Amino acid sequence: MQESESNKQKHRSKLKNSIPIGTIDVFGQEMERRQYVLDVIRNVYELFGFEPLHTPVIEHAVVFDGHHGEGEKLLFNLEDNRGTKLVLRYDLTVPLARVISMYPQLPRPFKRYQQAVVFRDDEVDRGHFREFIQCDGDIVGVSSLTADADIITLAFTGLTKLGFSEFTIRVNHRKIIKGIAEKSGVTNREGILDVQRALDFVDKITKDGLSGVRADLERRGINPTIINNILSVIELCGSPFDVLDQLEDILSNQEQAREGIAELREIFSYLQPRVINSLSVDLALARGADYYTGFILEGVIEKVPVGAVLGGGRYDNLVTAFGAFSEPAVGMTFGLERILTIMRELTRFETPDNQRVLVASVRYKSVDQAFRVVQLLRSANIKADFCCIFKDEKDMFKHAEIRNFSIVVIFNERGNFSLREIKKNPNLIRKVMKILNR
Amino acid sequence: MQESESNKQKHRSKLKNSIPIGTIDVFGQEMERRQYVLDVIRNVYELFGFEPLHTPVIEHAVVFDGHHGEGEKLLFNLEDNRGTKLVLRYDLTVPLARVISMYPQLPRPFKRYQQAVVFRDDEVDRGHFREFIQCDGDIVGVSSLTADADIITLAFTGLTKLGFSEFTIRVNHRKIIKGIAEKSGVTNREGILDVQRALDFVDKITKDGLSGVRADLERRGINPTIINNILSVIELCGSPFDVLDQLEDILSNQEQAREGIAELREIFSYLQPRVINSLSVDLALARGADYYTGFILEGVIEKVPVGAVLGGGRYDNLVTAFGAFSEPAVGMTFGLERILTIMRELTRFETPDNQRVLVASVRYKSVDQAFRVVQLLRSANIKADFCCIFKDEKDMFKHAEIRNFSIVVIFNERGNFSLREIKKNPNLIRKVMKILNR
Repeated sequence: MQESESNKQKHRSKLKNSIPIGTIDVFGQEMERRQYVLDVIRNVYELFGFEPLHTPVIEHAVVFDGHHGEGEKLLFNLEDNRGTKLVLRYDLTVPLARVISMYPQLPRPFKRYQQAVVFRDDEVDRGHFREFIQCDGDIVGVSSLTADADIITLAFTGLTKLGFSEFTIRVNHRKIIKGIAEKSGVTNREGILDVQRALDFVDKITKDGLSGVRADLERRGINPTIINNILSVIELCGSPFDVLDQLEDILSNQEQAREGIAELREIFSYLQPRVINSLSVDLALARGADYYTGFILEGVIEKVPVGAVLGGGRYDNLVTAFGAFSEPAVGMTFGLERILTIMRELTRFETPDNQRVLVASVRYKSVDQAFRVVQLLRSANIKADFCCIFKDEKDMFKHAEIRNFSIVVIFNERGNFSLREIKKNPNLIRKVMKILNR
Repeated sequence: MQESESNKQKHRSKLKNSIPIGTIDVFGQEMERRQYVLDVIRNVYELFGFEPLHTPVIEHAVVFDGHHGEGEKLLFNLEDNRGTKLVLRYDLTVPLARVISMYPQLPRPFKRYQQAVVFRDDEVDRGHFREFIQCDGDIVGVSSLTADADIITLAFTGLTKLGFSEFTIRVNHRKIIKGIAEKSGVTNREGILDVQRALDFVDKITKDGLSGVRADLERRGINPTIINNILSVIELCGSPFDVLDQLEDILSNQEQAREGIAELREIFSYLQPRVINSLSVDLALARGADYYTGFILEGVIEKVPVGAVLGGGRYDNLVTAFGAFSEPAVGMTFGLERILTIMRELTRFETPDNQRVLVASVRYKSVDQAFRVVQLLRSANIKADFCCIFKDEKDMFKHAEIRNFSIVVIFNERGNFSLREIKKNPNLIRKVMKILNR
């Protein structure tokens, strides 16, 4: 019994010194990178006329009823002191639909972005989290395809401002997928979903080319007509307009497909040449979510194959679920974690503006002078910290390196100072010297 | 039975179109103001050498065990799919203590700030929330009083950068409060807490002067010696150093008080004159939280009496609760909601940099040209939106006003444009004209 008590104690202490699986603590430089990426994305949304929105982390449980199918099993449920059933939000799209229904007076178009944490009580494997940040932007109330073109331009601008030069924005259209199903003699909802899933499967296995796709699809029991029709379109390549031309020949008798192709043509007609150059019409692109009704997009950075870094499309029926009216909507989301992974892999990822000065002394020497100097630096808008608790200079420099300071201003016991450069930064040195010599 | 079903249906639909009490949705301009204040506070923390920290919203329930006394009743509890007991974090201080204990390799001093949402399942009255943002900054591992001076300077700089010119930073010391208790013959923990609570009460009722305080304290059953000693100190006024001089005479035999006074003297000796000028040594200041051990501070903006807009102090024992070691710590928090309330009251609160251009036409006229122009403006880093769905120009200008645009670029059916200024902004007009005439 005593041993079991002591085991309990140990278990408690272990839990007390840990965080729930699928969650993270983020420190210092890594957190600065995270904020840098969030700032870039936020600025791009604002540049494009999106307004920020805040909604609560906790929502009434009924708000998330019936929107995510199997996903509902992953909701974190809780109950407050009054017995009200609540959930932690699973995404930012359902809260947007609630907002649209709850505040009918909001002006249209309603363009909002939201960068906020969402929760899924999922299995946790490499790179999957139970608490993570989404960066969504949506335009509600515009059926005009200029909104779709706006979203594509936004994706392009976002990746460019994040510093990526080589990327592809993959585009497809749900009506084209319906056309492929139609041509295969499949017209019911479940059948269309099968085609969607087959494409999604093809998308995953064709990373290394098309060989063996037919056998793989046959093994999954896909109807041979569907397989033939899929294979006839996924090999198409060329410029976005070329692919649409070829596709029009292949699917000339499918009304849905013709509509989808015409819509993509119109969307592309609005785009600038440099945006068109980054596009690829990719018939294997299907996207998981059920609610898309029009064009869909994904952004990929081929050099680091971690999957899409952004995704979205048009969904014209989601808002209906909350109110009496139906509303057109188009939107996208940036994948923060994947973007961070790629930036870490591709570059040294120095966030700009992280130059910092440490004003220091050993064992409280000349504390007054040092404290005065750190305030002077800060008044000149130089990020500066102050610390006089060091045992010796070795200790001081180690601290400066760990915490990523560029310069140390060292005070001795007579109130005189010297400078130590930890990272090359002639501009900063000059600015600091000017202030110190006043 | 049927009616009850229909009532249930109504109740469900009402919940579906509402948010939990004590939570908020925040839109457009109001959200921009919120982000502006958060950005200013974040920049001040970074200027002072604080690093950002992220910790999860969900924590193991045991992490919050035994830290908040009565407050624990306000924890939101939940359980995940694995049966692990979790809570939504109640504050950012306990997670900081967990972090310090969990990662012993973190360098000292550990200076972190965190702006994040916390949860309290509390009664909700005017201005109280169950989900709200805290903006904490703490320095862990420095017993030197320069850290306390750093926190006071940070408070001063924060309020200044937020645009406040008239404010008071009220300072007191827990050891001085102990001294007052000692002088009244009270030395046990509970007695000292009584004195603290009496001071807190005095602080609340003396907004309109000291008359009636004695009677009020007597009515609350406070010991007459304590009342006399409280009244002898709370009337003291003058410069911070003057008040300390007077206090030293009154509490000359109380060792704890003498220590507290000496510590405040040392802290003040590090401060710049303009910071000293904003200080008031205020013996009625007690602060609620139990864990403070040294100096305490509050910031108030007298013009709008909504209570303190910031608060903090030194707490040297909190971290002990998690591990074997004790660590000195000093910190503060900015009160976002109160700061926003005051800024709304005092100024028109135009956040800088919210100038936006709307490129528009009526009923899809010249969509191509309009879309090209909006992308040109964005390439020049001008926040711009695009919308051609308007019924007529009246509709267009109404939209521009509601969504706070400065300028509308209006395209007609021949692809020609005209400009309409919604808010005076000659600089922006000039920039836009230059781009349009290229």
